[in-house]
Amino acid sequence: MPEIAPRVSSTALQAFISKCLEATGMPWADTQTVAALMTQADLMGQDAHGVFRLPMYTRRIRAGGINVTPKISRVQDRTATALVDGDNGLGHLVMYHATQLAMEKAEKSGVAWVGARHSNHAGPASLYAMMPLKKDMIGLYIAVGSANHLPPWGGTEMLLSTNPISVAVPAMNRPPIVPDMVTTVAAYGKVKTAAQRGETMPEGWMMDRSGAPLTDPARAAEGFLLPIGGPKGYGLSLIFGVLAGTLNGAAFGREVVDFNADSTSVTNTGHLVLALDIKAFADPDVFRTGIDAVWDEMKSSPRLPGVEEIRLPGERLHRVTAERSANGIPLPVPFRRQLAKLAAELEIDPL
Amino acid sequence: MPEIAPRVSSTALQAFISKCLEATGMPWADTQTVAALMTQADLMGQDAHGVFRLPMYTRRIRAGGINVTPKISRVQDRTATALVDGDNGLGHLVMYHATQLAMEKAEKSGVAWVGARHSNHAGPASLYAMMPLKKDMIGLYIAVGSANHLPPWGGTEMLLSTNPISVAVPAMNRPPIVPDMVTTVAAYGKVKTAAQRGETMPEGWMMDRSGAPLTDPARAAEGFLLPIGGPKGYGLSLIFGVLAGTLNGAAFGREVVDFNADSTSVTNTGHLVLALDIKAFADPDVFRTGIDAVWDEMKSSPRLPGVEEIRLPGERLHRVTAERSANGIPLPVPFRRQLAKLAAELEIDPL
Repeated sequence: MPEIAPRVSSTALQAFISKCLEATGMPWADTQTVAALMTQADLMGQDAHGVFRLPMYTRRIRAGGINVTPKISRVQDRTATALVDGDNGLGHLVMYHATQLAMEKAEKSGVAWVGARHSNHAGPASLYAMMPLKKDMIGLYIAVGSANHLPPWGGTEMLLSTNPISVAVPAMNRPPIVPDMVTTVAAYGKVKTAAQRGETMPEGWMMDRSGAPLTDPARAAEGFLLPIGGPKGYGLSLIFGVLAGTLNGAAFGREVVDFNADSTSVTNTGHLVLALDIKAFADPDVFRTGIDAVWDEMKSSPRLPGVEEIRLPGERLHRVTAERSANGIPLPVPFRRQLAKLAAELEIDPL
Repeated sequence: MPEIAPRVSSTALQAFISKCLEATGMPWADTQTVAALMTQADLMGQDAHGVFRLPMYTRRIRAGGINVTPKISRVQDRTATALVDGDNGLGHLVMYHATQLAMEKAEKSGVAWVGARHSNHAGPASLYAMMPLKKDMIGLYIAVGSANHLPPWGGTEMLLSTNPISVAVPAMNRPPIVPDMVTTVAAYGKVKTAAQRGETMPEGWMMDRSGAPLTDPARAAEGFLLPIGGPKGYGLSLIFGVLAGTLNGAAFGREVVDFNADSTSVTNTGHLVLALDIKAFADPDVFRTGIDAVWDEMKSSPRLPGVEEIRLPGERLHRVTAERSANGIPLPVPFRRQLAKLAAELEIDPL
């Protein structure tokens, strides 16, 4: 029987996160930004990228691995591009800043591409891809993942991360289309979940160093994740890493620090965000209506036996956001205990 | 035994292509541009996207399906973006124009995104992604494919194309990194090749309408291609189609015309090209050296049993280009006969 996960209101959760961050020495205004974004991740159903990461963030902050008073600066600045140095601040702060900058620049130029370095884990990719939506812009976000989980195709050394990508496109009466995906068949979090539940993984998720399928998640350390489409997913992971990492002077390949295993080394995480102004191509209402039509067309396809409904990327995210905004965010009891322990350590009121 | 494919020099092939196009009424200057790009595709080893397409292009031109004297115009123009209307010209002309424009704009702004509509098949994606390399720029190209081969995930109606993407990143002493891929496990051309050779396809390439694996390429019409990573590849195909198609006012979904099956309907093909100036982020020499290091790092990974060498995306393209530039382009005998027939029809000298 799955464990009961009592609901917490987003307001209460956001207040709790900001109090925790304030207790670590983060300036008040920044705690508001980060807490709002982390709570938004939970509202969106991105359970592995919201408050779930708070204990790890605070551990890193207290160990000196993240700078709570970063001076975020532009080290390069052109009409439609910028390179932001995050001064080892939390990724949410760096990428909120970078995305706002991309939107400002795209307003003037039609498109803008902002890279970031010396950043950290920033939560789910769709958080930043979706920010430009309210300005009638399309958003795109790519990051170098925070730990390497796959080798180059044919190799056995884990030199690449699952480097995620998200793109967000607004509709008129339908939810936005928002793919948010890693470049591997399964995210590493799914392996961990399978291990916790004592389940076997399907063939195709992981391979061991002899090239044989690895289906026992307890043996995960003996193998690596497999990229989508074999060499194609390897190519995507590699190129996303180059664009979000190497180009920005951020970590890539052997430089990547596994931030779960190491609380003190500077990760020098790289990301990129692109904002594209729909008005530079079409009347936004005409475009949005066109996206509604795309939505309806996909939904109207005849279905394979056993398939109840065809889904669009972003549909679940939209439904979960509405449901959790109304009913609160479910937090499993063991995790609530972990948060209570964190509150005690930080000497603040529990959630 | 594979059929012998005698070599043709790239100079002779380019001259032949331009004569063919001239005979269809295309202005001389445009024949030079298209013939150079088509020959470059063959030099790069993109055999399914070079001169192989010439008989189909000329058939379409002569049937009125492609305009040989297009007025290519900018229908939208911002500092770092533009929307180009190809006036139903051949894709090579439209995308050569669009890519040059993107490079000009990126020189000033750091990045530029140019969309195109009322275009046609333009050859391989890497042709346009690689153009910005010589200006110390990164190139990205996406297109709506010229025929639908996959349904939305869970569906059976082929509403999506294999919408290709290519990104090109320059190195210093190593070849550029150039992934050039479709969003399906196999390109449709590989199915056709398997059918010609009487070979069975591996499971995972195609599925039939009952959801069962389809491995007999002779039965290809009874099923559809499968996207990389299941719903992930579906998401990529969908979003690439929206960005290269819907945003530009170009065909997407049910509007896509299968240009192999239909020689007269206007395809309204959509593409997009992005140029990113490396100088807006880093010293180009430092960046290029960093890409050499990425290259060497991937190559240095220990290998799976039986794997002789780890490859980088673009490595084969680079090797084939050098080899064919030196030794000529192999053209199979039956295809040479097809070209001889085309020459007779167009009343020009054979190759």
